[in-house]
Amino acid sequence: MAQKLLGIDLGGTTVKFGILTLDGQVQEKWAIETNILEDGKHIVPDIVASIKHHLDLYGLTKDDFVGIGMGSPGAVDRQEKTVTGAFNLNWSETQQVGSVIEAEVGIPFAIDNDANVAALGERWVGAGANNPDVVFVTLGTGVGGGVIADGNLIHGVAGAGGEIGHIIVEPENGFDCTCGNKGCLETVASATGIVRLAHQMAESYEGASPIKASLDNGESVTSKDIFEAAQANDSFANSIVDRFTFYLGLATANISNILNPDSVVIGGGVSAAGEFLRSRVEDHFKKYSFPQVRQTTQIKLAQLGNDAGIIGAASLASQFIEA
Amino acid sequence: MAQKLLGIDLGGTTVKFGILTLDGQVQEKWAIETNILEDGKHIVPDIVASIKHHLDLYGLTKDDFVGIGMGSPGAVDRQEKTVTGAFNLNWSETQQVGSVIEAEVGIPFAIDNDANVAALGERWVGAGANNPDVVFVTLGTGVGGGVIADGNLIHGVAGAGGEIGHIIVEPENGFDCTCGNKGCLETVASATGIVRLAHQMAESYEGASPIKASLDNGESVTSKDIFEAAQANDSFANSIVDRFTFYLGLATANISNILNPDSVVIGGGVSAAGEFLRSRVEDHFKKYSFPQVRQTTQIKLAQLGNDAGIIGAASLASQFIEA
Repeated sequence: MAQKLLGIDLGGTTVKFGILTLDGQVQEKWAIETNILEDGKHIVPDIVASIKHHLDLYGLTKDDFVGIGMGSPGAVDRQEKTVTGAFNLNWSETQQVGSVIEAEVGIPFAIDNDANVAALGERWVGAGANNPDVVFVTLGTGVGGGVIADGNLIHGVAGAGGEIGHIIVEPENGFDCTCGNKGCLETVASATGIVRLAHQMAESYEGASPIKASLDNGESVTSKDIFEAAQANDSFANSIVDRFTFYLGLATANISNILNPDSVVIGGGVSAAGEFLRSRVEDHFKKYSFPQVRQTTQIKLAQLGNDAGIIGAASLASQFIEA
Repeated sequence: MAQKLLGIDLGGTTVKFGILTLDGQVQEKWAIETNILEDGKHIVPDIVASIKHHLDLYGLTKDDFVGIGMGSPGAVDRQEKTVTGAFNLNWSETQQVGSVIEAEVGIPFAIDNDANVAALGERWVGAGANNPDVVFVTLGTGVGGGVIADGNLIHGVAGAGGEIGHIIVEPENGFDCTCGNKGCLETVASATGIVRLAHQMAESYEGASPIKASLDNGESVTSKDIFEAAQANDSFANSIVDRFTFYLGLATANISNILNPDSVVIGGGVSAAGEFLRSRVEDHFKKYSFPQVRQTTQIKLAQLGNDAGIIGAASLASQFIEA
């Protein structure tokens, strides 16, 4: 009897796979390199081959699985199970993904956007504790996210729901965003955004600071450098972190004033700054959230790390469990 | 066989009633005054008496009705069907509403917050055209709203979902809000908010303007006066409307960047300014919305006027239709 879920997290560098129990425990996991050569035409066959190989390896058959779920970059068509415009995979044209995997592996398949899938993972067995109302914000090179409201992942009319990184936090005089707008959250609250803020704030800062010295010397400064300096009481670095967390506190408060989720979960590479980051975002969040929201919506750190993708992907396959 | 819905819109001045078909057409409607004397203890008995009287009048019995739905001010407990802290009804303590009406009338009863209920009405048979993703923003003395995402009214963890009026649009130097925060949308984008903006902007405006003259003379100026002057090309009034619609465009864009609804529907008394208001909100919305959202989320005017409450309330009762 089918008792397992297979989750796939498709990224530009690796494809991660996980075999999970129906309650979200990872039993096995592995990864393969993503071969993006020749317009990414090897990706789907490589995934099929790797699934077949690992099912053999573990002595499993298709009958052991309720379904396969996948998170993918690009524009995902959930009905057709196709992906378009995933440029980090060299997939500019529409790719048949689900139909090929279902035909080759013989297990029902579901697919969604990678940020949405990570949100589902954190909501299911991570910081979201399976609550029906959870918002996930991921701070990496950019800012992504996913919104789960009343138990449903919110896609909106055209699938652009959850574009947390493009909430406008500086309507006047904001930085240019890759999306064509100015002042998006992503321009200031990502790994690149905090460095952008540092350069801007260095122009008017007059005290002594190793971070400011590095910037003035044209040396490379990272998000990690800035957080470490702030924790070591570099007052310039602290003022940058304060501005960074102001933007996140404002955006998470406004999301919460609209949705009153149980929690806003912060993940992604920048969230490695941990409680130092979380508590400062929370300070600003409390200033900008409606009183009843302030008392009931929590700011949390993500708990699943890189596994959020395979776990959330597996959760997509739960839809195939027969009632 | 039960083929009708009864919708009740409970307000501080009147209680409105409507008998609707299952597809949302209003067949009969009437209203009674809200008697808020003696801690509002007459309100529920008056509602019961009015329902009984009108059922007799129309030759209907409880068996003709699938259910009764009600929208109420205050904090609504949907499970217990009670209302707490509805100060415009003199209901400070928790009131038994649903249990009394169900016992007296014998029809299943559902209740929700009045702004949410109006959102459901506009979504069902109004501007929302029964789309699964619709946000309703009501511009009156304050700013309220409701969020319907993936077909569900979003309450959030503590029922504070949809607090559109408390989205922060001026994080620095905003006006004081009744909620205790500063810079909430309601402080600038309501009937009182636009007058507040007018006073602030009058201080630095140097041209000739009848509106500015009225403000400087200490005369009463209303939202309607400002919109009428702007439409008559008073450039001071136009600059106020521009600021007012900037805030609404920013807030509706950020809501839409999070949820990508089919439409954001603008209602309430201030929306009487019509297309002049809508098109200017839309101009700012387009500037601040993510490209895919800009192409797919529409800014619309509400269509149901005062009937949104009884229609949305009736829609709550649809849950009692047997499959």
